[in-house]
Amino acid sequence: MSLVRAHNIGISLDGFATGEGLSLEAPFGHAGHRLMEWFFPTATFQGATGNRERVDVDPAADPDDVFARRAWEGIGAEIMGAGKFGPPGWQDDADWTGWWGEEPPFHTPTFVLTHQPRESIEMKGGTTFHFRNAPIEEVLAEAREAADGQDVRLGGGPSSLRDYLAAGLVDHLHVAVTPIILGRGVRLWDGLEALQDGYDVESTTTPSGVTHVTFDRKQG
Amino acid sequence: MSLVRAHNIGISLDGFATGEGLSLEAPFGHAGHRLMEWFFPTATFQGATGNRERVDVDPAADPDDVFARRAWEGIGAEIMGAGKFGPPGWQDDADWTGWWGEEPPFHTPTFVLTHQPRESIEMKGGTTFHFRNAPIEEVLAEAREAADGQDVRLGGGPSSLRDYLAAGLVDHLHVAVTPIILGRGVRLWDGLEALQDGYDVESTTTPSGVTHVTFDRKQG
Repeated sequence: MSLVRAHNIGISLDGFATGEGLSLEAPFGHAGHRLMEWFFPTATFQGATGNRERVDVDPAADPDDVFARRAWEGIGAEIMGAGKFGPPGWQDDADWTGWWGEEPPFHTPTFVLTHQPRESIEMKGGTTFHFRNAPIEEVLAEAREAADGQDVRLGGGPSSLRDYLAAGLVDHLHVAVTPIILGRGVRLWDGLEALQDGYDVESTTTPSGVTHVTFDRKQG
Repeated sequence: MSLVRAHNIGISLDGFATGEGLSLEAPFGHAGHRLMEWFFPTATFQGATGNRERVDVDPAADPDDVFARRAWEGIGAEIMGAGKFGPPGWQDDADWTGWWGEEPPFHTPTFVLTHQPRESIEMKGGTTFHFRNAPIEEVLAEAREAADGQDVRLGGGPSSLRDYLAAGLVDHLHVAVTPIILGRGVRLWDGLEALQDGYDVESTTTPSGVTHVTFDRKQG
């Protein structure tokens, strides 16, 4: 069975995964880029955005990349929430095709959860956006089918990720804790008391100051 | 000038420093001992509770102790909130002298913030409890005087610690993040947005799985 995985979810020490006041000009609201600053220097991000050839990197020289790159390994489909696809109100803009330009970094079928679905959009580089107004279990079943034996990545934002976690549908979760107090925004952990009971949990701090915490579903 | 320091403050990944439902039988509520499990095996805790001679320990063999032991170095007085001194309602029990038996592990003047002050209590081993119904700045001034050139430790609970943090009165803060989702209780970080701006922050994960995060007030 293919796995359901979420990677590179940036959160603050007080548990917020995104800020307040999201808009076209401020995709993460007042958080700005602070929860993802560890990610930008990684070879994975650099490779995903400009430099097309992902190079092999010495993990000791780029320890955050050890975590960052896993997000692209063995993924056959993505599911994201409406809040990740665009700023509030994108549903009213018929020309909106996401934040990522002509060639988004997904390279797979990508399912967007929204109460206002539209026609699928085929982008360059293998990403096709499908818009679904359906229960999360149904969308997962469709994404799994589309992934064709590979894993399904949950891209966030925090609200959709939390729904999948609460439903017990997530096999692997990787969060990166940046030691700032964000104060407001959307909390990742609300309603997930004792989540760790079903998982093996590991923490690793890197020299960038971020703590990577992974949750792997317990076997058997 | 002596410093104001807080150490060994256990919090969950979702930011709670104590659980819900505190009582005589459950001093940390539904959290139980889960936020302090990293602390119990340390040489510092073992020394503080039984074994009176604190021994020198190889930091590599007991990395959590590197953090744990600092809490007792150079401290001349302690301030704690009413919620730490006893279970809800201790103010109505004239015989209550704290959780710690005849010889509490403070060994200094210890100021308890409470709206129902009582006579001071002199315990064995150098701890004297003083009860104060006064603004936090006033109690700090008195504790500083009592510390006689040494530092003042803030012992928590989270509500009193948060008040001192919000007032900008804390020079050093050490929290130990246990990767569990507690779900409810008292949050440490509420009202402290952007606290990190005034501090140098460092994170370290130890093999116990806890991440120690220290905040040191920026100089100059």
